[in-house]
Amino acid sequence: MKDIFCKIIDGEIPSTRVYEDDDVLAILDISQITRGHTLVMPKQHYDSLLSCPKEILTKVMMIAQRIGQAEVSILGAKGVNYLANCGEAAGQTVPHFHVHVIPRYVAGEGGFRLEMKSQDTSKMNLPMLAKEIGDALK
Amino acid sequence: MKDIFCKIIDGEIPSTRVYEDDDVLAILDISQITRGHTLVMPKQHYDSLLSCPKEILTKVMMIAQRIGQAEVSILGAKGVNYLANCGEAAGQTVPHFHVHVIPRYVAGEGGFRLEMKSQDTSKMNLPMLAKEIGDALK
Repeated sequence: MKDIFCKIIDGEIPSTRVYEDDDVLAILDISQITRGHTLVMPKQHYDSLLSCPKEILTKVMMIAQRIGQAEVSILGAKGVNYLANCGEAAGQTVPHFHVHVIPRYVAGEGGFRLEMKSQDTSKMNLPMLAKEIGDALK
Repeated sequence: MKDIFCKIIDGEIPSTRVYEDDDVLAILDISQITRGHTLVMPKQHYDSLLSCPKEILTKVMMIAQRIGQAEVSILGAKGVNYLANCGEAAGQTVPHFHVHVIPRYVAGEGGFRLEMKSQDTSKMNLPMLAKEIGDALK
């Protein structure tokens, strides 16, 4: 079954389009957690950022960057959050790669709230952990 | 004055390095909001994603993607959050562009908590808003 973004891309479900080219679509998020909250996605289906080919990921990020710049210059945003959730465990709700571009006007406003709490790292072997991840990139 | 990431890049402050090449450095975040929480950044200083040149942004994202893939394959993460905060209003604490790569093992675990609440859009003119942003991209 098609996911909702594939249906939007194919015009089967309406959306408010911000930008569109052959490979990339940007739409206003229906929830507008802040004013101007935009989703940028490839038209081709990829489940998440993790499985998106380099060329398409680059195109998505370039448009996402320009939209963030426009939110600052045109909408008067003071900052921008970029967020891509991969997998249900990471809060991804639609299994079609998309980047949230979330303009911020005053810290704490709107429906966006992010808490990042430090963990106790005293029992973690950080050099070993870094090596494990790094070795996988070779 | 140099920001803390410039000092890390120049070796003036220690860090736990995951990956390094001529343009990109990836280190374990000292706070480890989940196990394997990694920061990917350009070695050249740019304040945020918004001001990073295309070529460097692409390199950063390619490494960030590979690290997320490794967190799934090597660390057993069930999902990954990608987050780039631009500006203090967006919660950016170090003014040097960096992407958080945050592995997720069980939804809700660790120190990462994200709330995205829908706003009342009944008084927003969404087509006009989309046009404003879109026109700025032309």
